[in-house]
Amino acid sequence: MQINDLIKQTSGWLKGTGPHSEIVFSSRVRLARNMEKILFPSWADQKAQEQALALIKPVVEQLDQIKTDGLVTMMSELSPVDTQFLVERHLVSREHIAHLDAKAVAISRDETVSIMINEEDHLRIQVLEAGFMLDACGERISAIDTALEKSLNFAYSIKWGYLTACPTNTGTGMRASVMLHLPALVLTKQINRVIQAVIKLGLTVRGLFGEGTEAAGNFFQISNQLSLGRSEDEIMDNIKRIIAQVIEYEQNARQVLLTKNRGKLEDQVWRSYGILRNAHIISSAETIELLSNVRLGSDLGILKNITKEMVNELFILTQPSHLQKLEEKVLNPPQRDAKRAEIIRAKIK
Amino acid sequence: MQINDLIKQTSGWLKGTGPHSEIVFSSRVRLARNMEKILFPSWADQKAQEQALALIKPVVEQLDQIKTDGLVTMMSELSPVDTQFLVERHLVSREHIAHLDAKAVAISRDETVSIMINEEDHLRIQVLEAGFMLDACGERISAIDTALEKSLNFAYSIKWGYLTACPTNTGTGMRASVMLHLPALVLTKQINRVIQAVIKLGLTVRGLFGEGTEAAGNFFQISNQLSLGRSEDEIMDNIKRIIAQVIEYEQNARQVLLTKNRGKLEDQVWRSYGILRNAHIISSAETIELLSNVRLGSDLGILKNITKEMVNELFILTQPSHLQKLEEKVLNPPQRDAKRAEIIRAKIK
Repeated sequence: MQINDLIKQTSGWLKGTGPHSEIVFSSRVRLARNMEKILFPSWADQKAQEQALALIKPVVEQLDQIKTDGLVTMMSELSPVDTQFLVERHLVSREHIAHLDAKAVAISRDETVSIMINEEDHLRIQVLEAGFMLDACGERISAIDTALEKSLNFAYSIKWGYLTACPTNTGTGMRASVMLHLPALVLTKQINRVIQAVIKLGLTVRGLFGEGTEAAGNFFQISNQLSLGRSEDEIMDNIKRIIAQVIEYEQNARQVLLTKNRGKLEDQVWRSYGILRNAHIISSAETIELLSNVRLGSDLGILKNITKEMVNELFILTQPSHLQKLEEKVLNPPQRDAKRAEIIRAKIK
Repeated sequence: MQINDLIKQTSGWLKGTGPHSEIVFSSRVRLARNMEKILFPSWADQKAQEQALALIKPVVEQLDQIKTDGLVTMMSELSPVDTQFLVERHLVSREHIAHLDAKAVAISRDETVSIMINEEDHLRIQVLEAGFMLDACGERISAIDTALEKSLNFAYSIKWGYLTACPTNTGTGMRASVMLHLPALVLTKQINRVIQAVIKLGLTVRGLFGEGTEAAGNFFQISNQLSLGRSEDEIMDNIKRIIAQVIEYEQNARQVLLTKNRGKLEDQVWRSYGILRNAHIISSAETIELLSNVRLGSDLGILKNITKEMVNELFILTQPSHLQKLEEKVLNPPQRDAKRAEIIRAKIK
């Protein structure tokens, strides 16, 4: 697979399928791993980073998920549009493209597996799935971890568990997270109460693009805060239980809206659809807001011809680097606002 | 014709036809006339008002335009929805429905002629035409005036001309007005300069519903201020010359928008269309604003399937009493906002 093949497909985790896909956009588990006796990337000089890379990259390339038509590339070989493009597809982190030296990424054909080399840790492995599928993510990532451990010696302490650059990841090195679409909790003004409760239960709440981003489009990413002193199973059980509760709150809020405020809700959904269907210039922020309404409308059966996959894909396709990949040239912001509107009109026809 | 027949037809002056119909919504000429030796309606007691009515009504009923399937009705015989309905159709004035005693109206089949009895003056005759058609309005109203004068003695002074309740109407008793759609002058922020110039030249500028109303939807009604000391021809020539100039300004402003700001203009037009096409709840004010954009889009060839007649009709049909006539029952404001959206969706499909 080449990087230009990605734009032609819908990521495997964007299909709008899986349990509770009307509320759960995607599930994700990632592991942080480091090589024994090599400095963590941010403390290492160029030579030590290349040493880690030389050990890890050939092993990653031999993983089943990667060698079967996957993509492996040095980050430094990519254009600025392409590195940003991978961030927009949730395949690499923002940190991974801040400095490109001695960094690589490996991506499976369907984009549900991605492995960053020399990010904050030597290895950041993630598995993404559509819907509420944390167990499946956990099983798949565990198999990858096991396969890698056959050839790589990971830094591990009997007392602390897996050692990581940041102490918050030490222990299991695992972070489980779920991207939730919670428009009804926002509309009924219950969202802050729910977020506060989730935080009190030891989880973290973030926006669409992870740490430091806002909850645009009513998307909330909920993940475990602690990695140390608990087993993978305990972490998973805890987050699954809490997410199930949040899903129930959102379902109830949707029923309340449908019962008590149906007319206003339908109006908002149809107006959002009407604008997306007809605008010729549209910003990224407005797009996310309107797509959120349209997704809710689709989930509630108000918009019958709009599928979740269509809407999910538009969240990704309408981002700046995606627009430039589609147009195959660099676009300035006004050109992007026009191209974005064009793509949306074509997709939701 | 019955009053309920009106809702089933498009008023003759709303067809979107006639010269410069892309800018001129309609032309209107009205004459104020009073019976000799009977007090003006507002100074008269009930008996004097009925005396005037008894003289005028039979003569009006015999006019060609009225007797051929026209409508003649006492205002007091109409329901509140129906009286407001006639105001919304521009067939009677707001003043004419404030007190209904001894007041009547006669309306031609195509609604281009309407004659109020016992408004501010004993007779208020108006002729409306689609497009820039002041001459045609003038000729038609002159014929009606002549026909009435054969049977009625109008109060006339050799020194002052026709006598009227308000001195601003004395003289010819004529007011010529044109309803202009000037969105490009508004968008390019030239409108205030143009209005000031028009006022300096002795004309009056008002909104969509005459005196004291705002210029909603970028509609401006321009009429002569003076009626005394000039002939009908002088008044007509003056207003025609000035309106022709305003039309030219608006045309130029539209060309400037198309040349320099096409993308933004198209976006605004299509968004307005998209909202009208999809909203489920919409206020009267928002409707007028969006229809104005859609009308401009239609005039500029951006919206190819939207006709001027369709948009013009929606301006009228979406008013409160029209919605209630269509629904055949009294509607509260939220019900009207829903019905309005429904009518619009059905019409611009």
